[in-house]
Amino acid sequence: MSVRVGVIGVGNIGQDHIRRLTRKVAGAQVVAVSDVDASRAEAMAQRIPGASVFPTGQGLIRADEVDAVLVASWGPTHEEYVLAAIEANKPVFCEKPLAPTTDECLRILDAEMARGRRLVQVGFNRRYDPAYRQMKSTLADGTLGPPLMAHCAHRNPSVPPHYVGGMPITDTAIHEIDIVRWLFDQEITATRVLKPRRTSRAKAELQDPLIVLMEMADGALVDVEVFVTLAYGYDIRCEVVCELGTVALGDGSPIVLRKDNLRSDRVPTDFQERFAQSYENEVQEWVDSVAGGEASGPSAWDGYAATAVADACLAALDSGERVRVEMRERPASYGPAAALAAVGGGR
Amino acid sequence: MSVRVGVIGVGNIGQDHIRRLTRKVAGAQVVAVSDVDASRAEAMAQRIPGASVFPTGQGLIRADEVDAVLVASWGPTHEEYVLAAIEANKPVFCEKPLAPTTDECLRILDAEMARGRRLVQVGFNRRYDPAYRQMKSTLADGTLGPPLMAHCAHRNPSVPPHYVGGMPITDTAIHEIDIVRWLFDQEITATRVLKPRRTSRAKAELQDPLIVLMEMADGALVDVEVFVTLAYGYDIRCEVVCELGTVALGDGSPIVLRKDNLRSDRVPTDFQERFAQSYENEVQEWVDSVAGGEASGPSAWDGYAATAVADACLAALDSGERVRVEMRERPASYGPAAALAAVGGGR
Amino acid sequence: MSVRVGVIGVGNIGQDHIRRLTRKVAGAQVVAVSDVDASRAEAMAQRIPGASVFPTGQGLIRADEVDAVLVASWGPTHEEYVLAAIEANKPVFCEKPLAPTTDECLRILDAEMARGRRLVQVGFNRRYDPAYRQMKSTLADGTLGPPLMAHCAHRNPSVPPHYVGGMPITDTAIHEIDIVRWLFDQEITATRVLKPRRTSRAKAELQDPLIVLMEMADGALVDVEVFVTLAYGYDIRCEVVCELGTVALGDGSPIVLRKDNLRSDRVPTDFQERFAQSYENEVQEWVDSVAGGEASGPSAWDGYAATAVADACLAALDSGERVRVEMRERPASYGPAAALAAVGGGR
Amino acid sequence: MSVRVGVIGVGNIGQDHIRRLTRKVAGAQVVAVSDVDASRAEAMAQRIPGASVFPTGQGLIRADEVDAVLVASWGPTHEEYVLAAIEANKPVFCEKPLAPTTDECLRILDAEMARGRRLVQVGFNRRYDPAYRQMKSTLADGTLGPPLMAHCAHRNPSVPPHYVGGMPITDTAIHEIDIVRWLFDQEITATRVLKPRRTSRAKAELQDPLIVLMEMADGALVDVEVFVTLAYGYDIRCEVVCELGTVALGDGSPIVLRKDNLRSDRVPTDFQERFAQSYENEVQEWVDSVAGGEASGPSAWDGYAATAVADACLAALDSGERVRVEMRERPASYGPAAALAAVGGGR
Repeated sequence: MSVRVGVIGVGNIGQDHIRRLTRKVAGAQVVAVSDVDASRAEAMAQRIPGASVFPTGQGLIRADEVDAVLVASWGPTHEEYVLAAIEANKPVFCEKPLAPTTDECLRILDAEMARGRRLVQVGFNRRYDPAYRQMKSTLADGTLGPPLMAHCAHRNPSVPPHYVGGMPITDTAIHEIDIVRWLFDQEITATRVLKPRRTSRAKAELQDPLIVLMEMADGALVDVEVFVTLAYGYDIRCEVVCELGTVALGDGSPIVLRKDNLRSDRVPTDFQERFAQSYENEVQEWVDSVAGGEASGPSAWDGYAATAVADACLAALDSGERVRVEMRERPASYGPAAALAAVGGGR
Repeated sequence: MSVRVGVIGVGNIGQDHIRRLTRKVAGAQVVAVSDVDASRAEAMAQRIPGASVFPTGQGLIRADEVDAVLVASWGPTHEEYVLAAIEANKPVFCEKPLAPTTDECLRILDAEMARGRRLVQVGFNRRYDPAYRQMKSTLADGTLGPPLMAHCAHRNPSVPPHYVGGMPITDTAIHEIDIVRWLFDQEITATRVLKPRRTSRAKAELQDPLIVLMEMADGALVDVEVFVTLAYGYDIRCEVVCELGTVALGDGSPIVLRKDNLRSDRVPTDFQERFAQSYENEVQEWVDSVAGGEASGPSAWDGYAATAVADACLAALDSGERVRVEMRERPASYGPAAALAAVGGGR
Repeated sequence: MSVRVGVIGVGNIGQDHIRRLTRKVAGAQVVAVSDVDASRAEAMAQRIPGASVFPTGQGLIRADEVDAVLVASWGPTHEEYVLAAIEANKPVFCEKPLAPTTDECLRILDAEMARGRRLVQVGFNRRYDPAYRQMKSTLADGTLGPPLMAHCAHRNPSVPPHYVGGMPITDTAIHEIDIVRWLFDQEITATRVLKPRRTSRAKAELQDPLIVLMEMADGALVDVEVFVTLAYGYDIRCEVVCELGTVALGDGSPIVLRKDNLRSDRVPTDFQERFAQSYENEVQEWVDSVAGGEASGPSAWDGYAATAVADACLAALDSGERVRVEMRERPASYGPAAALAAVGGGR
Repeated sequence: MSVRVGVIGVGNIGQDHIRRLTRKVAGAQVVAVSDVDASRAEAMAQRIPGASVFPTGQGLIRADEVDAVLVASWGPTHEEYVLAAIEANKPVFCEKPLAPTTDECLRILDAEMARGRRLVQVGFNRRYDPAYRQMKSTLADGTLGPPLMAHCAHRNPSVPPHYVGGMPITDTAIHEIDIVRWLFDQEITATRVLKPRRTSRAKAELQDPLIVLMEMADGALVDVEVFVTLAYGYDIRCEVVCELGTVALGDGSPIVLRKDNLRSDRVPTDFQERFAQSYENEVQEWVDSVAGGEASGPSAWDGYAATAVADACLAALDSGERVRVEMRERPASYGPAAALAAVGGGR
């Protein structure tokens, strides 16, 4: 009766999802794995009772024993696997990005529309975070009036050596790009990227921090501080400013320490500490939606829109100018803007 | 491969546990239910694919298809079912109280010792709350020095009509009784109960609020405000005062509202909002421990000790005097005091 | 046109008050000083333009050039000077305690009543703290309903070598004794003092911490943690629990630091950092009241009541038992209980 | 021995300063007032014992009985009075702006330099706020590393009918312009002003909110939300982001309320509630500096720089473009940048 899941890509992220599917989430079992590194796939399968190894993702997707597919492979391979899953008419959870280029994303959109059924959920986990959900429901209940601005910060204590170039946009700000679309329930239409004085703690080739400014369709403005080598911890902040008041992510931690003349909350060490609950919710709700036969959560459209905005941000980072976001018109099958709000939530 | 669970008692608490076992927790399935109200058991079973109804808890416990038992029936029936599970050599999760009287608890202890294996986990969910776990690990790491006092408050907005007499002790303070034993890693040796001015909002026969004072084995003192009709919300507070500093449950909520000249955190409405995560962890870890073959979490000894302390509190409430806690010496098989800390944690 | 103040006692506290009178407060000048240590008085006078030295406090009090007297000498000398000021019909600000014994306090009360005019203000500075004043006005506005309990903590990082014996009561808890009388607007009728496990950081002869329990006239209960060698800082806490909600001193500091995985407020180092504003308000309002011809603030009755409660606490610390507070009936000239509220406030 | 102050302009701000000088601050007396509305000056003088009325500010400035001058008249008259005070070699406290145009400010600078002595203090009160001072000293102690960004918000619940056009810059953001120059200890070199979606609560001719972006000399970036009709209260926020951590104004209020499922700090109603202490400190320290013979605090240079930056912001608001700040080179007599830090602080 469980949903039988095949996982493509068993690197760090894939392993985390497998752990969730097998140890934290109800109603699923991992029955198949595949990875470009066959020995890694083999080693993983041996730790999952009843799981088989497939030499290719395509083979895994087509296998009868696989009800649904989770794609956690390298970004440039996403299109191929997601298209294959749509072809096989199987629900697919695809880690972000849906695909690195808007062209790829559009081919996925077209395929899903041709299939006539929502099959794709993109891994924008923050929509499943209890705090962001409370923000969303507070904005939706209207007591604060229309939102006019948001102030965000995305702070990391450090980044790995391969983190370079546009990754502050494509790997970091991408989360804020999705979440403000969701919170404001509308598209981002233009962007500008400012470069503050660089921190001496970033390696030479990285412009860190950045300030990303985004204009929403109705004129609301969003500023995002992206600072990936800010020593003190992993700190995600977001305040939406409305006509009558504001709502923000809370700063409080589960415990409070009084010591050494300080009264302190703990700041998380990394995204896994901060967002563990959101990942569990994300995977549980995906499994539930597969079992229920109705896709939910971030759609292929959301994946496409995020990539389109990231492209504009990269151009803005490069040029120093304001850049308009180029996007196709939203197809009716991805619903009115309001459909963006489909992931429920609340406490 | 899943743990096949039989649930005895499908009232509110039993239903909540069934929902967790079937929809939130990995590695379990509910295969059997039983209830004193046979039609209620029948209705529940029809909503769980593959579950059978048993006319008696005893029958359910003995059934081959049941690997482990969850007891959520009325307190006075707990002894019977827990003893039967021990007799059947099956792991049993028993909602608190382990049993309403210390005599019953002692018979369970004796049976479990005779069986020579830990089979019983008692439902003290707070030990699974992430915030209490951070408190515990902070106290354990020693940086604050030895604990000397704790200040607690247990505040409820309202109580149901049948909540009377000693229930502020046996249903409410019982949580603090267990949690301070766990946090301080030692027994409670004496208690005193003070009666502040009554609130006009409590019904006539209820002394509300109360202040419960407890002495720990090493002389540390704990005060607990128990106030079950305090209108503003469900608020659980706990600060442990050590020689070098203090650690407390945080007050912050997931979001912060700025509105109407206030900057506000939300206070939870009820225990389900506040402790949802702890219940999920509790059941997941029980299932994991059953699958792993090693009981963990609050033991039958913890269940006995809590009942013994509650008895002393009831006597103190009645007499107005300081009352010593009467307890058997802890058997070696329940480990040194340190074993109380067995439930891990981490953030 | 300024109020001409004579200061008796120019030790640390006297010097602080002189600094306030000359550098922080409008409408006053220090024209005379006296001290048991004549050379210290002389040295101080040379730093105050226009100030004379008097060989005795009595002489200073009688001097024509002195409009009002501030007594900051050793406690056992207070009665003599306060009585002399009443005799001279001059307003007198007396540092706490009004006098160390209730007999002395009663003689001051009798003298003031015989004079038929309020002349005495006692130095309970916390009534002038902006935060306590907001608590007071919040309680007074009635939106929280009647108060039923208060939880207080008085934490000091360290105490001087001469701090021994009953000083946790007479020098430390005395502040809470006054402030809860003021916040609840009623007398304390009985007390009990509990001894938690001692901290290893206190010297051998000091029982530290203590928990002081106090019963208010209407049955409300107050608990006060007194902990004078708690390393982490100077921390004063107070929460009043009412039928509909609570009001507490805030914990926030002027700034928030994010550093080293902590988000921290600063805890003050000592009472001077925490209560600087209250002392300035206290002295400014005393000068204003002298200029206006109407005494205000903590009265001789408040000084007497605090000493009577401290006596009961000392007896309770000694006996381990509940001790009733012995007090004369309040004379009409010190007004109904409501008059305790005379010190205004507001934010 | 008091400083004898003459006050020019007895409207709201002038009256507030007179109240401080006479009722809150040590060492000053108000001996003279003048106002363009002679009857208002007359009425005010009658309420201040010993104060005379002067028909003109110029006459007041020249009067022998006036030691120092406080200018609280309409902005366009500031230059005339400040120049006259410099001419008379008398210390002058000038409310902000020093003057509405940079040309006027430069004439004041030139006159003060010709006089060869600092006589002018400009009324940028925030430098005297205890919280900003703690931020300044935290930044100065170096433990957070160099500052790279600041995020500020200036929120008002409402503005008067005459608040139009560029006043969000010249009356509101002007405070942030000064405070970030002071906190970063360097000049602002360029600015940009963004227009978010307008609130429906502002009158038609007012663009509200605004986002003001400022570049510091070393490349640090500052964003300021200016929102003057945000209903919820008067809220001033500032976080400086450094390489190792951040320091921000605290959000906590003196008291915390628990009521109606909220745990709330109060947000101030207006600037007088929020900044009362800063105004008292500002005036006390001015009086002290006059008595001590050494000007301190915000200088004529600071007044000039603020006006120059405001001009750039107005141009940026108009054009939508980035605008460089045009400023004369700082004369040696106004010290190196470090001199901006001259106003001390500490807690």
